[in-house]
Amino acid sequence: MKRHLISAADLTRDDAVLILDTAEEMARVADRPIKKLPTLRGRTVVNLFFEDSTRTRISFEAAAKRLSADVINFSAKGSSVSKGESLKDTALTLEAMGADAVVIRHHASGAPHRLATSGWIKGSVVNAGDGTHEHPTQALLDAFTMRRHLAGAADGGPTHHRGPGWGYLPAVAGGGTGRDLSGRRITVVGDILHSRVARSNVHLLHTLGAEVTLIAPPTLLPIGVETWPCEVGYDLDAVLPKSDAVMMLRVQSERMNAAFFPTEREYARRYGLDGERMSRMPEHAIVMHPGPMNRGMEITAEVADSPRCTAVEQVANGVSIRMAVLYLLLGGAEPAPSTSRTEESK
Amino acid sequence: MKRHLISAADLTRDDAVLILDTAEEMARVADRPIKKLPTLRGRTVVNLFFEDSTRTRISFEAAAKRLSADVINFSAKGSSVSKGESLKDTALTLEAMGADAVVIRHHASGAPHRLATSGWIKGSVVNAGDGTHEHPTQALLDAFTMRRHLAGAADGGPTHHRGPGWGYLPAVAGGGTGRDLSGRRITVVGDILHSRVARSNVHLLHTLGAEVTLIAPPTLLPIGVETWPCEVGYDLDAVLPKSDAVMMLRVQSERMNAAFFPTEREYARRYGLDGERMSRMPEHAIVMHPGPMNRGMEITAEVADSPRCTAVEQVANGVSIRMAVLYLLLGGAEPAPSTSRTEESK
Amino acid sequence: MKRHLISAADLTRDDAVLILDTAEEMARVADRPIKKLPTLRGRTVVNLFFEDSTRTRISFEAAAKRLSADVINFSAKGSSVSKGESLKDTALTLEAMGADAVVIRHHASGAPHRLATSGWIKGSVVNAGDGTHEHPTQALLDAFTMRRHLAGAADGGPTHHRGPGWGYLPAVAGGGTGRDLSGRRITVVGDILHSRVARSNVHLLHTLGAEVTLIAPPTLLPIGVETWPCEVGYDLDAVLPKSDAVMMLRVQSERMNAAFFPTEREYARRYGLDGERMSRMPEHAIVMHPGPMNRGMEITAEVADSPRCTAVEQVANGVSIRMAVLYLLLGGAEPAPSTSRTEESK
Repeated sequence: MKRHLISAADLTRDDAVLILDTAEEMARVADRPIKKLPTLRGRTVVNLFFEDSTRTRISFEAAAKRLSADVINFSAKGSSVSKGESLKDTALTLEAMGADAVVIRHHASGAPHRLATSGWIKGSVVNAGDGTHEHPTQALLDAFTMRRHLAGAADGGPTHHRGPGWGYLPAVAGGGTGRDLSGRRITVVGDILHSRVARSNVHLLHTLGAEVTLIAPPTLLPIGVETWPCEVGYDLDAVLPKSDAVMMLRVQSERMNAAFFPTEREYARRYGLDGERMSRMPEHAIVMHPGPMNRGMEITAEVADSPRCTAVEQVANGVSIRMAVLYLLLGGAEPAPSTSRTEESK
Repeated sequence: MKRHLISAADLTRDDAVLILDTAEEMARVADRPIKKLPTLRGRTVVNLFFEDSTRTRISFEAAAKRLSADVINFSAKGSSVSKGESLKDTALTLEAMGADAVVIRHHASGAPHRLATSGWIKGSVVNAGDGTHEHPTQALLDAFTMRRHLAGAADGGPTHHRGPGWGYLPAVAGGGTGRDLSGRRITVVGDILHSRVARSNVHLLHTLGAEVTLIAPPTLLPIGVETWPCEVGYDLDAVLPKSDAVMMLRVQSERMNAAFFPTEREYARRYGLDGERMSRMPEHAIVMHPGPMNRGMEITAEVADSPRCTAVEQVANGVSIRMAVLYLLLGGAEPAPSTSRTEESK
Repeated sequence: MKRHLISAADLTRDDAVLILDTAEEMARVADRPIKKLPTLRGRTVVNLFFEDSTRTRISFEAAAKRLSADVINFSAKGSSVSKGESLKDTALTLEAMGADAVVIRHHASGAPHRLATSGWIKGSVVNAGDGTHEHPTQALLDAFTMRRHLAGAADGGPTHHRGPGWGYLPAVAGGGTGRDLSGRRITVVGDILHSRVARSNVHLLHTLGAEVTLIAPPTLLPIGVETWPCEVGYDLDAVLPKSDAVMMLRVQSERMNAAFFPTEREYARRYGLDGERMSRMPEHAIVMHPGPMNRGMEITAEVADSPRCTAVEQVANGVSIRMAVLYLLLGGAEPAPSTSRTEESK
């Protein structure tokens, strides 16, 4: 593992599988009487958020606290950062205060990379979302969710070849440990242009051997998407029957008037997932969503609330993935979590 | 005990006495060299605040931390909640992140009940104030405060029958353990209409056997108050001589121009508590206020700063009550706090 | 040591040296595998901030957490304080909640003194900056930084008498332990009028035996500065060759249009520190800045990024100083940190 996690594109297959496997061990901590590992006691994790994102912040905060780290929340709003302090001075300040890891969310694509590579900080940098660029822990938790549902049953080819008799596969804890997502077919639908989630997923899923198809209105595809390691299409109905997972991206309603989008109704009709469309997916296929969902826009309430929708599992898996990432970046010298003692047995 | 604490009206007499007795044990933790119990180590308490209320939030935060829980503060402002995320999706998110308890403050009456009963959350829900509905931990800390002052000396009838020779009763730690407030006479004064504190107090005090009288301008009484288990009156001076405790509600100055109120001067004259009025209360009677106090409006500085005013004790008791509630909701399987070891002796 | 830290002017030489020496011990904690002391376990430190100051808040937060205290952040914005609650009621609330220390930042000069002396609070009060009055932990971290650079080599007179052969002195951990800053010459440059940093530094440096010179435009000197224990001058170039440390104050750009200042360009020309000016300082002399720096205004990027600029060290030293202050105010009965066990060896 590298010292930082900036981009899903930086991860090798082995890196990614190691993170997913470690996250499986972390998920087991939640079953213990005391859901805490002493691994990062005395380490300080700073959540440096230049954009509000309560969901992501509390996921990292919960992950760090379960590893016994001290967490300091630094919202850049109202701080000297908003009075014009440079990212460099902020970084030097956090380094001087003894931050072992800085989890950064920034509106500018590339800010986490700058933080990690400019020599300002000795600690680890974790990208928690930068502009329209990357959101690697989101891609990892998505891959973790897919592996639990899809990889456990894997061998002899893509699962959708198994035909209709196979049925819906619930998530299996520990399912797929050691494996990647070879041959799985993943469809990502919606506003690819503004989505760091889509970009990170495409890179990571490709690394893990999956075949990715993007479905979006032409106005919501980024320039250069043809160089990404995936297919691009415009017809959702055509790809549904051969998708193992369909990931619906959130429509940012503030962009609906920005000429990118057709009308809301038209968008929902062409790119939204409803029960009728879901029924055309293979029986084992899952519906994913990074949340929060716009029920009635990109996803109907029927689909959002169906057992095939993994949105809530994804949130839970997010904590396990972030524990794994912090553990691997900061705790490399420690014994593996499966053999380390919990607080209780200490 | 139920799994949630939504309404003071849900508590039986035995539930309420158990919480008050447990709070007495929690109050003793403050006397130890290390004011911390390991009871909730590894548990996560989320403060989900849709309204700002620093006092209430830090009281719950202090309580949870003294029980060694991890605390995550989730202010709904600026979060995806304010971008239209439903309470359901927020709830599912917190559940997925492993929240063992959600302490919720919401501007809408009924939101905590919805959170608790919709099956979204497996953890416990604690109502920290919802709209004009309820604020059950406030009522519990008020009852705790009254019991410490009034119940210790109880037997053979209401204390105000003892006459002037009895004198002021200071709070007695552990005073009244196992008892309720039978026969005590409590007067609640002010803006009943907008007060969740008044509503929760009326229910809980009635359950504990006290006799409650509400005193308010007619415009500040809620419709249906005649069905509440209490008396209603308009003449403060008439009830003072037979009150064991007088609870002054805060005047929300932002409502003073809203046609509910007479002028400030008129309000203070008719419904405010000053030294002259306080002297008409029985000698043992106490003055209560949920804080923060508007000195000069509903209470004069002389009364606010007199030893008979328990406002500050109420704040301290709030931490003990919230520790007791979190302990009873989350830690039922653990040994009672009086026999559990502190961190130090561990 | 007193129970509170309100003003650098209250510290005796021995108090100040004790804090600096204790901070040296605290700095060593950062080298341990688990950077945490159990000293303040079960104690509660409240950060009561009436002004935003993320840098100062997280420094105190990191310090308290390294000593295992529970930390509660109380931003007065949006709290009942902003609805008119008095400082007294806030204080009584925090006291009642069991705050062992209140770290207060307030826009009004004198608020921490009021908090400490009015009998509202039994815990310790630490001034984290009040109006234009004082910021004593900033002065202490500045003195700590100076001592590490300048005092280690001390004997037989001021270091600047050593001449050009002496060279730049890097910070020495533990350097100068037990000593003060006798004979060192410190120059403070900029907006003295609005600077609590300058005021606290003048008092503390004088107490520690240093000779202080203030350099500022006449409009930015406070009335009564002639009674301060320092020299005042207007010619930066004249004092540079005989300064052991030059402290550049931050220009508050919001004050640049307030008739106090000459134009930005004129200010930088007369009072800014650039490479050319820095070269006129003795070789061993350091450049200090409380941060955040306005590169191009009071300090050029060349100087800010030179090894002689201690701005980043000052931030790191701030955590050690705040640990020392909290330790000495709250943990007096505990064994000294050098002999206490870390969490790990417990």
